[in-house]
Amino acid sequence: MEKILSLSKRRGFLFQSSAIYDGLNAAWDYGPLGVELKRNVKEMWWKSMVRNRVDVVGLDSSILMNPKVWQASGHLDNFSDTLVECSFCHQRFRIDDITNLEDCPNCDEHQSLSKPREFNLMFKTFMGAAIDTASEIYLRPETAQGIFINFSQVLNTSRKKLPFGIAQIGKAFRNEITPGNSIFRTREFEQMELEFFVKPGQDEEWHKYWIEQRLDWYISLGLRRENLRLREHGAKELAHYAKATVDVEYKFPWGWAELEGIANRTDFDLRQHSQYSKEDLSYFDEQTGNRFFPFVVEPSGGVDRATLAFLLDAYHEEEIQSSPNKKPELRTVLRFNQHMAPAKFAILPLSRKSELSELSHKIHSSLSGSFSTLFDDSQSIGRRYRRQDEIGTPYCITIDFQSLEDQQVTIRDRDSMAQERVSIDQLPAILRHKLNIES
Amino acid sequence: MEKILSLSKRRGFLFQSSAIYDGLNAAWDYGPLGVELKRNVKEMWWKSMVRNRVDVVGLDSSILMNPKVWQASGHLDNFSDTLVECSFCHQRFRIDDITNLEDCPNCDEHQSLSKPREFNLMFKTFMGAAIDTASEIYLRPETAQGIFINFSQVLNTSRKKLPFGIAQIGKAFRNEITPGNSIFRTREFEQMELEFFVKPGQDEEWHKYWIEQRLDWYISLGLRRENLRLREHGAKELAHYAKATVDVEYKFPWGWAELEGIANRTDFDLRQHSQYSKEDLSYFDEQTGNRFFPFVVEPSGGVDRATLAFLLDAYHEEEIQSSPNKKPELRTVLRFNQHMAPAKFAILPLSRKSELSELSHKIHSSLSGSFSTLFDDSQSIGRRYRRQDEIGTPYCITIDFQSLEDQQVTIRDRDSMAQERVSIDQLPAILRHKLNIES
Repeated sequence: MEKILSLSKRRGFLFQSSAIYDGLNAAWDYGPLGVELKRNVKEMWWKSMVRNRVDVVGLDSSILMNPKVWQASGHLDNFSDTLVECSFCHQRFRIDDITNLEDCPNCDEHQSLSKPREFNLMFKTFMGAAIDTASEIYLRPETAQGIFINFSQVLNTSRKKLPFGIAQIGKAFRNEITPGNSIFRTREFEQMELEFFVKPGQDEEWHKYWIEQRLDWYISLGLRRENLRLREHGAKELAHYAKATVDVEYKFPWGWAELEGIANRTDFDLRQHSQYSKEDLSYFDEQTGNRFFPFVVEPSGGVDRATLAFLLDAYHEEEIQSSPNKKPELRTVLRFNQHMAPAKFAILPLSRKSELSELSHKIHSSLSGSFSTLFDDSQSIGRRYRRQDEIGTPYCITIDFQSLEDQQVTIRDRDSMAQERVSIDQLPAILRHKLNIES
Repeated sequence: MEKILSLSKRRGFLFQSSAIYDGLNAAWDYGPLGVELKRNVKEMWWKSMVRNRVDVVGLDSSILMNPKVWQASGHLDNFSDTLVECSFCHQRFRIDDITNLEDCPNCDEHQSLSKPREFNLMFKTFMGAAIDTASEIYLRPETAQGIFINFSQVLNTSRKKLPFGIAQIGKAFRNEITPGNSIFRTREFEQMELEFFVKPGQDEEWHKYWIEQRLDWYISLGLRRENLRLREHGAKELAHYAKATVDVEYKFPWGWAELEGIANRTDFDLRQHSQYSKEDLSYFDEQTGNRFFPFVVEPSGGVDRATLAFLLDAYHEEEIQSSPNKKPELRTVLRFNQHMAPAKFAILPLSRKSELSELSHKIHSSLSGSFSTLFDDSQSIGRRYRRQDEIGTPYCITIDFQSLEDQQVTIRDRDSMAQERVSIDQLPAILRHKLNIES
């Protein structure tokens, strides 16, 4: 984990947020490579969940919602941690963490603790200018409710029939008491959620279906099967809306932890919103003439967690021997799946001389429209290869002086380090073929 | 405008947020088509600003930042509207709107107004659990500051030299007193911002460059030149950090209004953050041996505004005569540029019979991996064409019973309504060619 965080900072995947102001607790910024990796995670999710399916449509609902939404969903009443407060230093602690109170930083008197109280995890803010009419509103703690409250509008405009789903990617906020482990648990985070609406009675079957689909998604994008497992929630662990939940867990350096939860939310949310809003969110089945509340199966993944898992799983160190009389060197390489690699290609002119530069930029332009492509003319070619290995670029394209004469360039493979000389004419076709990415 | 809003709601571009709870003032949700349109806006911006350029890298910084950022940037002191408060009803009004006080809704006594006061437009919230140590923090009112505070980290990890830029797309929040005009001015909105760092003295030249580039971007994606203009800010209008600002304005139904501002921010932000953080954010020029603060040219666009402009500009009504003896009909068509169209293709099986369905799904699968493709078997083919025209789908592919025998399908062109029969084998290649979209 330390190695990955150090590489992430050094190469521009992840920076501590507000670092020049000593940071903000558990907030992170994605650097030039991190933003591309995270974009790939979201893009591949959208492709597999929305674009490639005829039974799912997308949505992008706002973070700020009418606060009645959180009353109906149960978040105002139930979305809380149980805390105790030290009556001297006024620090609050999760009752689960009570054994660690030895560390109470401001106070030696932590024997005197309040009775346990519920602390709501939603961030609160105020909208509007007039003091008296200013609305107290919340930053959404999950994107799911934005889908439920739009259920009828989406149903009517898309004219879908059950079973069908509504998918959304967006930010959510939780005032976590104990955030940590880099981007694994942060107060501001991004979710990718699908609410899949089915006929009651078919919910368990669809629950199974989505558990398999989601596990397969992570594997298909390169996570090793042995680092993934499914874990079913025990009765006490289940959220107030869920009938059953299975987590896809990843073997993080600190242990197994949730990447995504696939919950059977029953008809809880649509019923609640119908009751609170007086709008009927039930479904009319034309075939049977019945009206009912659909059940909901929800695969809910964390974008940041997935990004971290892809980063961790890609990390490899290996000894290489560049020539027989030299000592073996350590090579660090991120073996990203091609879809996940922040850059697919790096264009590396051997020198900064203008003749090479012109040709190199031309080659960059011919690729960058379709594929994320870096351009680097900054150091010795050996150091540039090492850098591209460390950031997981599948193919480097090196342009040398010979290229000006024979119109050929060298392709270097990240994993095998094999080099191959190809004609510039054929370069885009050859690279497209190697990439094996549909586009 | 009313026609567009009505179409947007009917077809699933835009919904009032929290509609079942009577909404939330000036908040909107993007429906299944709206989310795709907005994704296209962001994708094309990212492609043109980051991917196709060797002198720009991306970033994704967090919404929540250390509050010292807003002290240094001047937002805590300067980012405010001047308001007066009615001492009876406690409503507040922008001093600019003071002539409209006849409408004061709660009160007849609005003669008694307070002295003008500054009202900060940043949303405030509280982080952490302990009351005493809970930090008062803000939702960012612009994404730009997330770029400035990461300047050195990005510079060091990407090893770029001046001139170079850092680009970011993300949500920002402003507690506007008078939001309105649909998604034109909302309290929660999305920005696409580039901070382009240049040598002092070259800032005016680069300012001109970016004004041209950004105007061209809107035109290249289909906005009509006559609906766009450039407008320079007057001295009084300039933000506290700006030396000069030129807006790209669009002719909205209510008048000319800003799509994007291109500001010359000078070295204000980097200097301020250096001073407040005690971290040196200056730049060392290896060629001259000089150390200085780069100037910044900032093209800052609104994602939601651009989305609205593309929607408005695409709207066309035309009379068509389907046959000589019939009355002319009104056809509504969104003539989106192909990059902007929420769906590129719609697969329309003539009936729901299983033979057609199977072939149609196969054709859908062959296209949806690369291009957003709808599937619709819900109504008469005429009504489905009308629907696809109304949502701006460039090409419909109709599968009929003949298709089962001759392995041909019909392509219908949105704009000309011309139909052409092509072999299924060649369909992807033909459509790819028609689309004229690099991929």
